[in-house]
Amino acid sequence: MIKHTTSLRVRYADTDKMGIVYYAKYFEYFEVARTEMLRALGLPYAELEAAGFGLPVISAAAKYFKGAKYDDALRITAEMDEAPSPRLNIIYRVLLDSSDELVAEGETTLVFVDAGTGRPTRPPKLYLDVLNNLTLSR
Amino acid sequence: MIKHTTSLRVRYADTDKMGIVYYAKYFEYFEVARTEMLRALGLPYAELEAAGFGLPVISAAAKYFKGAKYDDALRITAEMDEAPSPRLNIIYRVLLDSSDELVAEGETTLVFVDAGTGRPTRPPKLYLDVLNNLTLSR
Amino acid sequence: MIKHTTSLRVRYADTDKMGIVYYAKYFEYFEVARTEMLRALGLPYAELEAAGFGLPVISAAAKYFKGAKYDDALRITAEMDEAPSPRLNIIYRVLLDSSDELVAEGETTLVFVDAGTGRPTRPPKLYLDVLNNLTLSR
Amino acid sequence: MIKHTTSLRVRYADTDKMGIVYYAKYFEYFEVARTEMLRALGLPYAELEAAGFGLPVISAAAKYFKGAKYDDALRITAEMDEAPSPRLNIIYRVLLDSSDELVAEGETTLVFVDAGTGRPTRPPKLYLDVLNNLTLSR
Repeated sequence: MIKHTTSLRVRYADTDKMGIVYYAKYFEYFEVARTEMLRALGLPYAELEAAGFGLPVISAAAKYFKGAKYDDALRITAEMDEAPSPRLNIIYRVLLDSSDELVAEGETTLVFVDAGTGRPTRPPKLYLDVLNNLTLSR
Repeated sequence: MIKHTTSLRVRYADTDKMGIVYYAKYFEYFEVARTEMLRALGLPYAELEAAGFGLPVISAAAKYFKGAKYDDALRITAEMDEAPSPRLNIIYRVLLDSSDELVAEGETTLVFVDAGTGRPTRPPKLYLDVLNNLTLSR
Repeated sequence: MIKHTTSLRVRYADTDKMGIVYYAKYFEYFEVARTEMLRALGLPYAELEAAGFGLPVISAAAKYFKGAKYDDALRITAEMDEAPSPRLNIIYRVLLDSSDELVAEGETTLVFVDAGTGRPTRPPKLYLDVLNNLTLSR
Repeated sequence: MIKHTTSLRVRYADTDKMGIVYYAKYFEYFEVARTEMLRALGLPYAELEAAGFGLPVISAAAKYFKGAKYDDALRITAEMDEAPSPRLNIIYRVLLDSSDELVAEGETTLVFVDAGTGRPTRPPKLYLDVLNNLTLSR
């Protein structure tokens, strides 16, 4: 498994009148976590787009265990299988940094598309190369 | 089943650089749909809060079939079982109003909590009454 | 002056932990108000984009008088001068629908650009025609 | 003047179909910048709230010079006068980290309120102490 941890801090804008992070915001946190995981792999998402690929989300889910609060420091792990696939299944865990309590967990599936046609396509070579190099280096 | 349909229009703010609605935004659309369903039932969510109850989301999921675009008119159905329960399972379908194409579908589970303690609680009487009246009137 | 009024309802997502609408959200409400003003003029913004023009915001400001709350019904007026110009200065007023209390007021300046180059350009003919017809019809 | 610089990265969620950061988002970036300025002063905003004070925004403005793009690293400076006042006037500058180009600048005015009544109030002692210590230490 490929695993990466990102840190972020809850903004006032993220909270709602219940005093906790609005439930849809976690999907934005997941975006940050997968962006940073791809960057850590040496494959910034912006480069994938520059190479003519898109990676839209086709399904997303989250479970909420504890309401994160304003200014909480969060740790978000993103994890995915290292076997190449036209679909990326990424699993997330959001933790309170101070106490390691589990705030939420989630999952997204993204699919490689040709940015021109919007149609699903085989994973780009630059992506496959990154995964191959990972495996070779073990 | 209780079923309600809400209409809304995609804002520029909702789109991302891919030119379609950002995936997390659909959960906000779901919020609008369930709010209007509860209002149509005669039970505005604001009244539930005023009565000392909260209804946080404990799980949420969505599948995306077609990217909705800026200024698209959308129709969102929200559906839930009319049997009283401390958990509300609501199912959503987002359709392009012009063509009836399915844009996305989703599901959320919400749980009644005591707003003071944050603890799960039995459904409030005003909610049970609404559901009972529905059944009686059939 | 061209003046148009739009209605919208405050979403849970729009509130913050202070229990009122987060200050940045009003700029999204302003977007809704100007979009509907342009549509009422017979010139949907989406058509301007389809014709190869963009209309980015170059300045924006707001003053806040009263915190709008969850589920409040708001009325937003957008007003602009009917003299053709490469810049659109639009003034907004946000009112509580129930009491006519002033919630916020604001202003945005937008400038016509060529969508290809991103450079400022003369207002598109379809926009000038709309304004001319307005004046003629008085 | 008190001045503090914060870094952040543009999220996909922040962009709109024009391919640049949506104009309202900058006000959220300003929030991050002033939060971090207050923290650097030794006065986290969360502590102000815990002490029974609120600091709502009463006016906000921005000018936009260049569209920031997805994944851009931004530097945001927040600056305010160190003379104690019941109103905080904060000025912001958003720069592209790679080139120092000016993306946007803005200003917000916030006012201390009693969190219980919502009424404007004198600045809290813990805030005055921080400013006094700043001045003394020069």
